[in-house]
Amino acid sequence: MRIVVLAGGIGGARFLRGLRRAVPDAEITVVGNTGDDIHLFGLKVCPDLDTVMYTLGGGIHEEQGWGREGETFAVKEELAAYGVGPEWFGLGDRDFATHIVRTQMLGAGYPLSAVTEALCARWKPGVRLLPMTDDRVETHVAIDVDGERRAVHFQEYWVKLRASVDALAVVPVGAEAAKPAPGVLDAIAGADVILFPPSNPVVSVGTILAVPGIREAVAAAPAPVVGLSPLVGGAPVRGMADKVLAAVGVESTAQAVARHYGADLIDGWLVDTVDADAVAAVEEAGIACRAVPLMMTDEDATAAMARAALALAEEVRA
Amino acid sequence: MRIVVLAGGIGGARFLRGLRRAVPDAEITVVGNTGDDIHLFGLKVCPDLDTVMYTLGGGIHEEQGWGREGETFAVKEELAAYGVGPEWFGLGDRDFATHIVRTQMLGAGYPLSAVTEALCARWKPGVRLLPMTDDRVETHVAIDVDGERRAVHFQEYWVKLRASVDALAVVPVGAEAAKPAPGVLDAIAGADVILFPPSNPVVSVGTILAVPGIREAVAAAPAPVVGLSPLVGGAPVRGMADKVLAAVGVESTAQAVARHYGADLIDGWLVDTVDADAVAAVEEAGIACRAVPLMMTDEDATAAMARAALALAEEVRA
Repeated sequence: MRIVVLAGGIGGARFLRGLRRAVPDAEITVVGNTGDDIHLFGLKVCPDLDTVMYTLGGGIHEEQGWGREGETFAVKEELAAYGVGPEWFGLGDRDFATHIVRTQMLGAGYPLSAVTEALCARWKPGVRLLPMTDDRVETHVAIDVDGERRAVHFQEYWVKLRASVDALAVVPVGAEAAKPAPGVLDAIAGADVILFPPSNPVVSVGTILAVPGIREAVAAAPAPVVGLSPLVGGAPVRGMADKVLAAVGVESTAQAVARHYGADLIDGWLVDTVDADAVAAVEEAGIACRAVPLMMTDEDATAAMARAALALAEEVRA
Repeated sequence: MRIVVLAGGIGGARFLRGLRRAVPDAEITVVGNTGDDIHLFGLKVCPDLDTVMYTLGGGIHEEQGWGREGETFAVKEELAAYGVGPEWFGLGDRDFATHIVRTQMLGAGYPLSAVTEALCARWKPGVRLLPMTDDRVETHVAIDVDGERRAVHFQEYWVKLRASVDALAVVPVGAEAAKPAPGVLDAIAGADVILFPPSNPVVSVGTILAVPGIREAVAAAPAPVVGLSPLVGGAPVRGMADKVLAAVGVESTAQAVARHYGADLIDGWLVDTVDADAVAAVEEAGIACRAVPLMMTDEDATAAMARAALALAEEVRA
């Protein structure tokens, strides 16, 4: 079974771990979000790709959900001693090595997809991890600063500001000129199942879909497309998805996100059991819907979610 | 008193610490060797400049003579886990931060001299540290590998091979097209005294003098030029200077090095007391010479060496 997953960071990575356990023999291709990539200290940092890679490769800081286990922070402290920031982005020494290797390879002319493959040769994540594009895309968030509209990098909004102010707009800068990375469209076209994990529908899955050709490929794919709601009981399970959903005019409910994706894109949708009353509204929109537990409390619970998503895919295929 | 010192790494840095103690009110300009600079992991590493900066700024690993005190090696270990080398160059986590800041600034368009000034704003070395040039110069060493002549980077010869094979030639690649960094020629022309510390006469001081204009400026400067022998009793005090001296056809003796610089360049020369019998030979070459203790066993001993060099400068000036 060939499965394609459009994944963001922590939520996507944890879901993938469950999926891998649920169907160990499946051939899983992950199309990773690179809109939250950022240049820090002259280095190219790809938070979502690395979170997937570290999580599936056994190097993730489990409690934190991102970054490496057993980190030290000598480099960051030294950079601060030089007065070089930003200090709000927590890069550990081990993590720095990943960005150094990546930046060196990019500087030598390798595309991000080749770099990601090289990094994964060490981590052996058990999936094929593709960046959504080899081109530079940066998600910017428009905010109000003392009455002036200002655009900040997504990481500044998310990590520095902790999404504490309203997002007026979310713009994947560069996406309109970006091309899907090699292998992305073929994987989507050849998939048996396409899954949207409980990742952020705007700044993770939405950014991947903003790369011209990817949305169209998903919509045209013969495979059933099934998503899992990142919202449970009207609030994000983690992160601040409600803030960026508001920016695109979508309510923070499981059914509103399903309708946001729309029946032309997704065939099935899983909501949490606490949102069972949303099932009817989603099905009215032409999307098959089931209510199952959606809290990724451990790998078993996550594997059960993955199995439910695959079961729904088989239902809509039939 | 304005003093200009042409300095290499460990020997130059330790001498400078003694000089600063000997004449705390002097205005010291250090013209630093950049021929041993190397790009590692996509980062610009300037070993000699950093050794001077760390040593005078109180951040040096004292016993080792290079690198930072209290280092950790998480980044290096991770790079090795990615299979990315070289592993023979010992960059610690703290040291990495310096190279990250430098590379970022160079990438933003700042010349190395401006970058060095910015780094020194933190370290406050008590001297003005100038790279010999803002242009790229790389010292290569020609060696014989299975009957084939091959050029390797100086660091590969020095650090990886530990100078275990003969150096057939030493070539400061790029030097002929390099320009002295801003301030270098003015400092030399305006100096009251010019000193060659006991740095390597070929790959440290020799490389600095290979930048067109610097040798000529030193020779033409009104200030007395006094050097200290890096060779004591026919052997380098530290390092493997004999190997690279042989490559330029110079014997590993205190008097041979003085004659190698020549009376058109230096006015005075200090040899160690064990080499007192060399004084006459040096003076025959037209260079004033004195025998004094030249072992930099501690800062007091080194300050005494600096005072002896300044005293000889006054003698030759008179």
